[in-house]
Amino acid sequence: MTITITAFERSPDGGKGLARDTRVRWALEEAGLPYEVRLVSFRAMKEAAHLAVHPFGQIPTYEEGELTLFETGAIVMHIAERCPALLPVDGDARARAITWMFAALNTVEPPILELVIVKFVEGDKPWKDERLPLVEGRIRARLTQLAARLGDADWLDGDFSAGDLLMVSVLLRARPSGLLNEFPSLAAYVARGEARPAYQRAFAAQLAVNTAPLPAA
Amino acid sequence: MTITITAFERSPDGGKGLARDTRVRWALEEAGLPYEVRLVSFRAMKEAAHLAVHPFGQIPTYEEGELTLFETGAIVMHIAERCPALLPVDGDARARAITWMFAALNTVEPPILELVIVKFVEGDKPWKDERLPLVEGRIRARLTQLAARLGDADWLDGDFSAGDLLMVSVLLRARPSGLLNEFPSLAAYVARGEARPAYQRAFAAQLAVNTAPLPAA
Repeated sequence: MTITITAFERSPDGGKGLARDTRVRWALEEAGLPYEVRLVSFRAMKEAAHLAVHPFGQIPTYEEGELTLFETGAIVMHIAERCPALLPVDGDARARAITWMFAALNTVEPPILELVIVKFVEGDKPWKDERLPLVEGRIRARLTQLAARLGDADWLDGDFSAGDLLMVSVLLRARPSGLLNEFPSLAAYVARGEARPAYQRAFAAQLAVNTAPLPAA
Repeated sequence: MTITITAFERSPDGGKGLARDTRVRWALEEAGLPYEVRLVSFRAMKEAAHLAVHPFGQIPTYEEGELTLFETGAIVMHIAERCPALLPVDGDARARAITWMFAALNTVEPPILELVIVKFVEGDKPWKDERLPLVEGRIRARLTQLAARLGDADWLDGDFSAGDLLMVSVLLRARPSGLLNEFPSLAAYVARGEARPAYQRAFAAQLAVNTAPLPAA
């Protein structure tokens, strides 16, 4: 059955690979699963047809036959369950890889996403300049703890897993601010992720969308 | 093998059941798995012995023989994988239950947790009063979408699942502010969760910890 995911018609990052469809593309490439992409505009994301697929009006989604999924973490896990190289089939290593998936999305990403609130959503507010260092401090606290756990290992728990896929993806969002590069071991970890052929293919595919001419209105 | 989880020696909520160990206790009670609890103080949470178990210095953790896990979502999933009533063993229903687990923790909870930042972490800042309605508005937007998807169903996708367990737990954190009760269908959904015998046992167990005398220093 054909796998179809959704992605932004135009990503707010202009093709830097930070939109969440890149994470799903990466997992599909690691698993060797072909997929199709349906592009959605910001307007269409909030309309009934898309809300029927994604109740929170976001991308990506995943459709395969009768199955419809949303939430990047859940989609990556669904793909990883078919790919033992992303997620061991059972045993302690499986549980630990899942732990890092949740750690990426629930503990490390939230303070990083708060930068978007400070700089853009509330970018015109008088508290912006005073709040920014507070938020940056919370990000540094998390990255310090993550770097301590990673140590000099290549990946977070033995071989590369879906946990690393999501953690690298989350850390990429801390690079434009300069915060990632304050932690050389984490910057090198991200670079190892980016060097994987599957990531390269995923990145190129999303870039092609974001540099293609928009369809005529 | 004995399952041991960690919990606050004293929860900041004084026993209202909002600390994350309640979610793990609830899952263990649904699965009928006995467990022990090791209480940790705020000081001990940031020390090396606890950081070896939880790299981000939080609770809960889960230990069973050689396996050590952190991240509430991952612990609940590990428990649910042994309990088909929490997570179907395979098929589309399994993937959809996992979707709701991630939706609870990644899409619905982050704006709710931001209330803690506004009211407490940045509670002494001059922007508190002006930021509060902005954050409340983001929570209402999510709850509106969630209520639209739930409709008049009892649970999010057919039978009760680990997705409901986490969503109810997340929504409970929006009750003290009054925001949950602005959405009667969601308040009723939370009440259905709270009425489950497994939740009642989990709540009572955490309350007993928080009302017991503290050990002598």
